[in-house]
Amino acid sequence: RIKASGLKLQLCTNETQATREDFVRKLRALGFDVSVAEVTAPAPAACRLLKERGLRPHLLVHDGLVPEFAEIDKTNPNCVVLGDAAENFTYANLNEAFRLLIGMEKPVLISLGKGRYYKETDGLKLDVGAYMKALEYACDIQAEVVGKPAKRFFESALAELGVPPEQAIMIGDDIVSDVGGAQQCGMRALQVRTGKYR
Amino acid sequence: RIKASGLKLQLCTNETQATREDFVRKLRALGFDVSVAEVTAPAPAACRLLKERGLRPHLLVHDGLVPEFAEIDKTNPNCVVLGDAAENFTYANLNEAFRLLIGMEKPVLISLGKGRYYKETDGLKLDVGAYMKALEYACDIQAEVVGKPAKRFFESALAELGVPPEQAIMIGDDIVSDVGGAQQCGMRALQVRTGKYR
Repeated sequence: RIKASGLKLQLCTNETQATREDFVRKLRALGFDVSVAEVTAPAPAACRLLKERGLRPHLLVHDGLVPEFAEIDKTNPNCVVLGDAAENFTYANLNEAFRLLIGMEKPVLISLGKGRYYKETDGLKLDVGAYMKALEYACDIQAEVVGKPAKRFFESALAELGVPPEQAIMIGDDIVSDVGGAQQCGMRALQVRTGKYR
Repeated sequence: RIKASGLKLQLCTNETQATREDFVRKLRALGFDVSVAEVTAPAPAACRLLKERGLRPHLLVHDGLVPEFAEIDKTNPNCVVLGDAAENFTYANLNEAFRLLIGMEKPVLISLGKGRYYKETDGLKLDVGAYMKALEYACDIQAEVVGKPAKRFFESALAELGVPPEQAIMIGDDIVSDVGGAQQCGMRALQVRTGKYR
């Protein structure tokens, strides 16, 4: 309906369990006419950052997201990239990521979001932000967040749209990631009371 | 050697993987002449607090610690008690503890310590403090810490010894839990460069 009205649309997702291709396929199956180019997602943003800074990541992410990092050198890691790893958030995997970080001269933790929790059909789940906080505390470091609510993330979505922030509106169900992040960018924002809203 | 010199000794442990009985058994096997009464540990401190406030805990702790809570009513939980659960820190168990907390009108999280990490023979491990931070962030709450470095914890050890803080010295390898906690209590403290010191 937004598209039919002539308004431009960019989907800003913190989806880090799957590639943009998978994400778009899911939305299309639900009847939404969207393309990969209309999706701004944390993993490609992280890849840009890794390349810029010559970082080789150890990935603690969902299996479904790994293809987004196909072209990135992952040998002899000098940083950790954290996504919503879901079932991959095992005790062993968390300790492994921690040991790599604490063993670095200057630990670099890149987090694909800082959401607190989200809702799935079988209930609420801890989101990547909670695990980010655990690693931050253990290593006494600050993660760099590349997904929502990072300002840079919204700026890149606006650049895709080719519109200034004051002509855009962000619609989302998360008061921090969606609404807060967009407002910091000079956009207006609207919180919908669906999804995980409680 | 401390005992032979006539000095009084109280072991302040944040051991939350086993009961005090197990802990003493291990130390005796290593040749140390200690008794259960000479051990101040977080689990019994938590039990006192639970009883005082009529709290019924959901336990996310190591299997070996469960016997310390044998006399505590755990039906229909109205708080979560977090220890170093080690292998029990699974994705499912963390989500379960989170869902219980977020579902409470006023979430109460009691943590048996806030250590960042510790060393085992196979390497460094995330300690209970990291998981505490994850749940604090997800639920937007502050945990109550009952082990080191809580002031109350050291005070109860001093009470067992029957000496004022200025006549006691705390010896430990953790700058926050051991040294910081003791100093806040008016004790002198000495950091040893063993164990996890790096």
